[in-house]
Amino acid sequence: MSDTFFREREPFSPLRYEYSVEKVLYHRNSEYQEILVFENPFFGRVLVLDGIVQLTERDECIYHEMLVHIGMCAHPAPSKVLIIGGGDGGTLREVTKHRCVKEVWMVELDRAVVEVSKEFFPTLATAFDDPRLKLIVEEGAKFLRNSDETFDIIVVDSTDPIGPARNLIEEAFFRSVFGKLRDSGVFAMQSESLFFHSEHIKLVRERLRKLFPVVELFTAPIATYPGNWWSFSAGSKGLDLREPRRQPDFETKYYTTSIHRLSFPPEDFLDKVMGWV
Amino acid sequence: MSDTFFREREPFSPLRYEYSVEKVLYHRNSEYQEILVFENPFFGRVLVLDGIVQLTERDECIYHEMLVHIGMCAHPAPSKVLIIGGGDGGTLREVTKHRCVKEVWMVELDRAVVEVSKEFFPTLATAFDDPRLKLIVEEGAKFLRNSDETFDIIVVDSTDPIGPARNLIEEAFFRSVFGKLRDSGVFAMQSESLFFHSEHIKLVRERLRKLFPVVELFTAPIATYPGNWWSFSAGSKGLDLREPRRQPDFETKYYTTSIHRLSFPPEDFLDKVMGWV
Repeated sequence: MSDTFFREREPFSPLRYEYSVEKVLYHRNSEYQEILVFENPFFGRVLVLDGIVQLTERDECIYHEMLVHIGMCAHPAPSKVLIIGGGDGGTLREVTKHRCVKEVWMVELDRAVVEVSKEFFPTLATAFDDPRLKLIVEEGAKFLRNSDETFDIIVVDSTDPIGPARNLIEEAFFRSVFGKLRDSGVFAMQSESLFFHSEHIKLVRERLRKLFPVVELFTAPIATYPGNWWSFSAGSKGLDLREPRRQPDFETKYYTTSIHRLSFPPEDFLDKVMGWV
Repeated sequence: MSDTFFREREPFSPLRYEYSVEKVLYHRNSEYQEILVFENPFFGRVLVLDGIVQLTERDECIYHEMLVHIGMCAHPAPSKVLIIGGGDGGTLREVTKHRCVKEVWMVELDRAVVEVSKEFFPTLATAFDDPRLKLIVEEGAKFLRNSDETFDIIVVDSTDPIGPARNLIEEAFFRSVFGKLRDSGVFAMQSESLFFHSEHIKLVRERLRKLFPVVELFTAPIATYPGNWWSFSAGSKGLDLREPRRQPDFETKYYTTSIHRLSFPPEDFLDKVMGWV
């Protein structure tokens, strides 16, 4: 074991996490943020942006599979998908597992994250060569505002809603999303920890409910995101998201049809818990 | 916010947690362990034994309610309950909410924990005056070996299975539990994080399965236990634990009948996840 530690500087968490560092593999500032990659004996490689852990090789599958497959398996036949953020490629990897997908648009602000992932995270950056991919280096909210495209699935795979990702929870952004979503479409985003960030979650739900007839919250345990008990918020124009319409015909490490059904806490339970967390 | 931090020394975790300390309220060695109580701005008061966080005022309800009510609500009419450990009183508080309970035996090794809880954790130490309680200061495994009593519910509320609590996962101990459990009885214990300690969980399950016809695992998210995604292991002589037979007629902050049903991951999912975590 190493004697060097990485101490996360997460202003959005009341608990600080500390990882032992076996080796620093990359540490440089991009145009937008400080990028650090290190090796940890338990979690494998860890990607850190501006001092905050974004993913570890060991548990990223839970986050990426849940962010993608709940919405995509609830949809009868998603063909055109938009990913906002997700430069590491994990969300893209999961989206491209669906053979019904014809086009994936991915809008990432920081090209350096894509390059770092290609170099250091080969198990995440598996689909950047997929011919269905259209990779656009731009700010997500701006892209959506100016685009004429419409989508079956829109996924926001963002950093915490501080700094650049703050735009991605604004009402104006949600209106753009709603406008670019097809009638049977699904919107999904990560919405922080149910335990640590319930005020944030309530805000997101309130804003989504102004637009989407169906707004749902589902959860997954992610050990390396402070507060764990991670929440995802999703919306549709009528499609029931709780019921999987398609079974995955590909490999997963966490997502299953039964976990799909178990991941939506009942509304009365959410009200109860969000009253005190 | 304070500039003083408490850094957990948890040899059983690959991730170290750090809490800001607003004020140290108690710090002394008992006959068995180092006891620390401090105040944190988010979690409230925190109880630490031998450098490891045992509970915080903010989230202890999740742990104690799940440890107790799953087994007790699955049982048609639990009358006599044994708690091993649980000196802080949180498990006892939950057990005594069940009006059908006639006797609660609690066997705690370290009297000092009870005294500290009475002084610093008034929301946990609510039931030490309950006339149904018989408090015994002794090592749990030894008590059970020598006792002639039988119980409807046996709950182990222990520290991590290192140090004194190591006895409480031995096959000999589980045989004692099985022997002292009535025919419709339920045994429940905390069994660490599904994410960080899957080898431990497998060991516990294997040992329980040698004795109990029904062995189940259920989970809850507990932000302050490393790895979160907390597991509880339970056994019965035939009683189905997944189905609540009684609705709580008392206040809870987390446990509900619907959460009872949602807390048991399907076996195929457990096999899948425990293959890689």
